[in-house]
Amino acid sequence: MMPESPIRKLVPYAEEAKARGTKVYHLNIGQPDIETPEVALNAVKNYDPKVIAYSHSAGMLSLRQKLTEYYKSVDIDVTADEIIVGAGASEALLFAFQSIMDPDDEVIIPEPFYANYNGFATNAGIKVKPIFSDIETGFALPPIEEFEKNITEKTKAILVCNPNNPTGYLYSKEELETLRDIVKKHDLFLIADEVYREFVYDNHTHFTAMHLKGIENNVILIDSVSKRYSACGVRIGWMISKNKAVIATALKFAQARLSPPTFGQVAAEAAVDTPDEYFEAVMKEYVARRNAVVEGINKIEGAYCPNPAGAFYVVARLPIDDSDKFCKWLLENFSFENQTVMLAPATGFYSTPGKGTDEVRISYVLNVDDLKSSVKVLGEALKVYPGKK
Amino acid sequence: MMPESPIRKLVPYAEEAKARGTKVYHLNIGQPDIETPEVALNAVKNYDPKVIAYSHSAGMLSLRQKLTEYYKSVDIDVTADEIIVGAGASEALLFAFQSIMDPDDEVIIPEPFYANYNGFATNAGIKVKPIFSDIETGFALPPIEEFEKNITEKTKAILVCNPNNPTGYLYSKEELETLRDIVKKHDLFLIADEVYREFVYDNHTHFTAMHLKGIENNVILIDSVSKRYSACGVRIGWMISKNKAVIATALKFAQARLSPPTFGQVAAEAAVDTPDEYFEAVMKEYVARRNAVVEGINKIEGAYCPNPAGAFYVVARLPIDDSDKFCKWLLENFSFENQTVMLAPATGFYSTPGKGTDEVRISYVLNVDDLKSSVKVLGEALKVYPGKK
Repeated sequence: MMPESPIRKLVPYAEEAKARGTKVYHLNIGQPDIETPEVALNAVKNYDPKVIAYSHSAGMLSLRQKLTEYYKSVDIDVTADEIIVGAGASEALLFAFQSIMDPDDEVIIPEPFYANYNGFATNAGIKVKPIFSDIETGFALPPIEEFEKNITEKTKAILVCNPNNPTGYLYSKEELETLRDIVKKHDLFLIADEVYREFVYDNHTHFTAMHLKGIENNVILIDSVSKRYSACGVRIGWMISKNKAVIATALKFAQARLSPPTFGQVAAEAAVDTPDEYFEAVMKEYVARRNAVVEGINKIEGAYCPNPAGAFYVVARLPIDDSDKFCKWLLENFSFENQTVMLAPATGFYSTPGKGTDEVRISYVLNVDDLKSSVKVLGEALKVYPGKK
Repeated sequence: MMPESPIRKLVPYAEEAKARGTKVYHLNIGQPDIETPEVALNAVKNYDPKVIAYSHSAGMLSLRQKLTEYYKSVDIDVTADEIIVGAGASEALLFAFQSIMDPDDEVIIPEPFYANYNGFATNAGIKVKPIFSDIETGFALPPIEEFEKNITEKTKAILVCNPNNPTGYLYSKEELETLRDIVKKHDLFLIADEVYREFVYDNHTHFTAMHLKGIENNVILIDSVSKRYSACGVRIGWMISKNKAVIATALKFAQARLSPPTFGQVAAEAAVDTPDEYFEAVMKEYVARRNAVVEGINKIEGAYCPNPAGAFYVVARLPIDDSDKFCKWLLENFSFENQTVMLAPATGFYSTPGKGTDEVRISYVLNVDDLKSSVKVLGEALKVYPGKK
């Protein structure tokens, strides 16, 4: 049974709120408002073939070669034949699941985690074993014993998203090395979803799973242009593995669906040449946004928000009885100066029932002024919410 | 285990032949050489958003509305909310499989059939039950008893491709009505892959599964812009169903992968306005091509090729011991005036072992002169092939 997206189920209530004339601040989605780099848009405008033909099933060679240049620039050694391009990181991750697991196998994922991982797992017929990461530690990696306790005969992989969606948490080198030790000991795969790898703040540095020594054949990197270049709609992501058997199997799945989208590949290849100034401006903007959200929420009585170092999400704890009820109530029953906010209940990011009932995910994908207004609205809402704790 | 594509396994031999300086005529693939309509290419050039954002998971509303106009023009009544757009008909068919079947359920497909159906079935965890259609009848629909014999508790659907890939066969109204009766009697789904629906020749008309009375809720139509507008690389196809439960389930799978590619949707929407003259020229060209292939092959001693009324493929019987060996031999050991041909062994289109060993699929996606040269080369090859029967 395909699980329902935790974000989408509130959409009808948001529509109704808008129909009543209420302004809804959308803090619920991962669609950035940042402009797609011109270099990517222009490449598509200037692309001039006579026939929009199938590309190579693994992705255009020119794109894969260009991606190796990007990785070289961040000190990661990858060759074009270690890359399989998908219709977004979504498809790439599905290929990864299908290539290393059989139905009923298990993947361990620290929760809260990106809700669509459940969908890909269902799609691949595999099971997600969640292990709890705690808002009190800022959603740091759970202790090694928690992994050990959950490893069975069926466990084939550990998946981490770094920086993390939904928590924004940036895993440290030490945490990655802990994962390396577990992976090595039990001969598992480590799937590292690094689609937010460039969104790292406050002079922190990102430590990639590709730099872990001794498990080179066990690491699968998932990456994408969607967030990095604000190009979610091009649907270009990819998986990387140095394990030739994994790539060979993934290629068979890729061949069955023929090829990834051509125009998107053209945009993605050009996007790699996005000038550094673009990122400098974007990172500055996201830091200001994160600060507005984190500082604002921590001023609300009874609320707590860690200050994560990456991505563009936070998970905040609110003084509420039930985050699903609260998020629905915000849309259905509340407005302040004719405005309300749409949040994602954190319950949808936990696999364990009962977790996340007093937490929400906030995407800071609006400008600072709108985010300040949103936090103000949230604060006012908590003053009058009937289920306040 | 993901099956290997029957077409791709010969690629290394073709590369080697080319490296030796031999001209290889590619009759093995479904990539048309026909130009993509300008109206589609221009729409992408003129598309000017600031952010390439996710679209609706079911596809842009404007695209789905435009598609309803296309269907209206061919007398098919469809609304935008009965359409789920995928990354190609490949993804749309996978959504259809996943929406109506659980793992281990069965779909009946007349063989020979499009080899990637096996891949989608593996992907969905379901089983394909082939029933034999015979070159002697031009690959007409197998008798109803063959369907009845193969229906079990696990059977959930019958899938037909009409006009057919790989045979080019155009199912008649009467054959579709036979399928309707079986579907109704056993309460199955009828999945009709009509991606070649416009490629119908010799004043035949296409009878769509959407016109079958009394099984409206059981029909799922699969369609695509790939072949119709020679735009395989845009990766836009879709499924259509009047069954609201099917659409609701398919939408969940669609949401898990977020959205279909944006640029491709822009091209697809514009492609619907392709002028009639484009198709008139294309159809004339394909008829000339088919005639060149069918007439040419039937002049070869011991060879037989039916004269199908649709798509751009034929399956021909050749006086050979083993089509896999023969197709490999053509690339590895043969040339005539420094030319050879790459064909698809029909074995890859049969699910039953031992079938198709004296048959090949030929895609007539080259111009008439090249096709005539190809047939000449094939005839010369058969004069000297050591495994000739």
